[in-house]
Amino acid sequence: MADRARVASKAMAIAPGSAKDGWLRKAAHAVRVRSDEILEANARDVDAGPGLGLNKASVDRLRLDPGRMEAIAASLEEVAALPDPIGEVIASSRRPNGLEVAQVRVPLGVIFMIYESRPNVTVDAAAICLKSGNAAILRGGKEAIRSNRALHRVIADQLVPAGLPGDAVQLVSSTDRAAVGHLLAMPDRVDLAIPRGGEGLIRRVVAEAKMPVLKHYTGNCHVYVDADADPAMAVKIVVNSKAQRPGVCNAAETLLVHRDAAATFLPIVADALRDRGVELRGDAAAMAIVPSMYPAKAADWDAEYLDLILAVGVVDSLDDAMAHIARHGSGHTDAIVTRSLAAARRFVAEVDSSAVVVNASTRFNDGGQLGLGAEIGISTDKYHARGPCGLRELTSTKWVIYGDGQVRE
Amino acid sequence: MADRARVASKAMAIAPGSAKDGWLRKAAHAVRVRSDEILEANARDVDAGPGLGLNKASVDRLRLDPGRMEAIAASLEEVAALPDPIGEVIASSRRPNGLEVAQVRVPLGVIFMIYESRPNVTVDAAAICLKSGNAAILRGGKEAIRSNRALHRVIADQLVPAGLPGDAVQLVSSTDRAAVGHLLAMPDRVDLAIPRGGEGLIRRVVAEAKMPVLKHYTGNCHVYVDADADPAMAVKIVVNSKAQRPGVCNAAETLLVHRDAAATFLPIVADALRDRGVELRGDAAAMAIVPSMYPAKAADWDAEYLDLILAVGVVDSLDDAMAHIARHGSGHTDAIVTRSLAAARRFVAEVDSSAVVVNASTRFNDGGQLGLGAEIGISTDKYHARGPCGLRELTSTKWVIYGDGQVRE
Repeated sequence: MADRARVASKAMAIAPGSAKDGWLRKAAHAVRVRSDEILEANARDVDAGPGLGLNKASVDRLRLDPGRMEAIAASLEEVAALPDPIGEVIASSRRPNGLEVAQVRVPLGVIFMIYESRPNVTVDAAAICLKSGNAAILRGGKEAIRSNRALHRVIADQLVPAGLPGDAVQLVSSTDRAAVGHLLAMPDRVDLAIPRGGEGLIRRVVAEAKMPVLKHYTGNCHVYVDADADPAMAVKIVVNSKAQRPGVCNAAETLLVHRDAAATFLPIVADALRDRGVELRGDAAAMAIVPSMYPAKAADWDAEYLDLILAVGVVDSLDDAMAHIARHGSGHTDAIVTRSLAAARRFVAEVDSSAVVVNASTRFNDGGQLGLGAEIGISTDKYHARGPCGLRELTSTKWVIYGDGQVRE
Repeated sequence: MADRARVASKAMAIAPGSAKDGWLRKAAHAVRVRSDEILEANARDVDAGPGLGLNKASVDRLRLDPGRMEAIAASLEEVAALPDPIGEVIASSRRPNGLEVAQVRVPLGVIFMIYESRPNVTVDAAAICLKSGNAAILRGGKEAIRSNRALHRVIADQLVPAGLPGDAVQLVSSTDRAAVGHLLAMPDRVDLAIPRGGEGLIRRVVAEAKMPVLKHYTGNCHVYVDADADPAMAVKIVVNSKAQRPGVCNAAETLLVHRDAAATFLPIVADALRDRGVELRGDAAAMAIVPSMYPAKAADWDAEYLDLILAVGVVDSLDDAMAHIARHGSGHTDAIVTRSLAAARRFVAEVDSSAVVVNASTRFNDGGQLGLGAEIGISTDKYHARGPCGLRELTSTKWVIYGDGQVRE
């Protein structure tokens, strides 16, 4: 499978954009016209879910319906509409000796994607990997295996008709975990591994992988409300950061409030959060102002709840807030609400996260929201790519040098 | 040491360019005025070299003299003259909801450099790491320990006077190999490892490192002379690629010649190479034309000689040449000499190397030659950086998002 992916990746690297976009549009069409086949397979996964120990929320994530099917088809068309990243000249110059040198964008090669639950990832990952000129090997969760097989079959059937290699997207159809380990041990055949799912999955992949891994472990995101923040704006931002979609990595997990703002701000924000069903866990200073909070334990400051729970702390200064974020944060997304230009500039310069946000929700650290068009995950690493990863982040570069006989003196 | 480097890296990340350049200029001055101290230490390394089993060439690489000292000082000033990469906005846009988003260049953090022999690397690595806003931990070879300690002392003495943290450049002064292993096991404190030296050193670092490694294992570089190449240009390029500096990674190790050109071209190039002292090892077809070659063994096609030896093969077509390069090459630098536009375009598109060269010497795959200004090594990986690595390749990015109360709907 990895050898076939490597061969396919060579053809993908030089495939014209028209072939890649043609495949994406044919695949969208096929998802629509063959939706019965996909929905039937999905229904069997959904029926089997409780037997695999899936709770109601997990079964819901697994379930496809005509609305979700249309979203899958539409996302293929959205990727088709994006510009082709391959061949872009990133830098170029004519050297003093007349050499023309250019740094040109090329694909990474073979990408191995390991994910859980949501079957739409099968299609999204295939679309982004192939549009960026790579071959993909996909391995979904065993709870979605029938749905993933059906989706893969439908989109892979369109590869050869579109002029792309039939092995450009392969699905690991075994649910044996050893298959993942075998692929992760092949750095000569797989160029990048992308795990998407819980922290346990990601740590397992990092521990085993002999190739680079694009990842984030957790999203312990903070909102810091500065002394002179606009209270109404701060409430809106805190509530949105926490409660708009609590189960995702860019949702806020901790609220820090400057001591000078705490007495007036905490009661208002506590009411607004409670209206959205958020449980608050405060430090002593916060509880002195809003006694109905639960007391925060030490572990709360490091927790990624992914749920309607928020840790709340009072800090003495911007420096204390930044020190708290440096100590407990996961380098994912951290926001400040302030009217102070100096505070905003210091927060942006000194907080070491994939995204630092001034006066807006943490939820904006997202490929679509930042204008990347499509996203395969968010990286909190500093090497290669940081933040939301779209088409460009799945590419490398090559130096191309044209001369007319130049040699080094 | 790693903890101190991490603390220093925070200050380096926000250090103004003027402080970094001030340090580089002070360090250049100090290298000049304290050259006696450095040369005395170096003389002791040179004296001890034969006792450590160093051959004449290795002792020569180790030796500093007034000319090499001036080159070290000048290289510090050259790095000072380069633009500061930190803070550069790589991409930015105003989103439809009014958010202003920017991707800004930031340092990687702490860089651990492991190298052999040449003491100038101590200064070059410090200069490039700090100019790019990082802290550096340096570990040179034991044969150069006295020279490295003296050079480190001289340049590190200038950190605090220049307003930079005194721990921004630290030297591992122990020659115990275990020290390297300890640092390579600290991904939370060291962000990147850069080994520079023989393939054995690099493989050891990759095997032990828990953080990314910027590297190339070998440079098995090819020159392919196409059917219709200009013979005079081809001779000049082959000779320069092989013999101008045979001990470096971008020197050619294999010459491939199209069958239609072989009968006329091989005798000429063989004479020119022999005049430069190059030993030729040919396949059967090449030896049929130039019988005085040594016969190439299978291992010759994979060898990085780093010496005045060249493997010579005859191929039937451009496709065969590219297949040979794909099979035996190391993805470093590969060149074609041709007058055919179609052949040049195919070679550039399909050869998967960090640099592909048309009608010029392989020796141009070099940071200085490509306009990067300074180089810490050449990467043959596709992840993060590929080809010569200068200041930018030692940086990451951060998303900075400014709003006025935006939330996600």
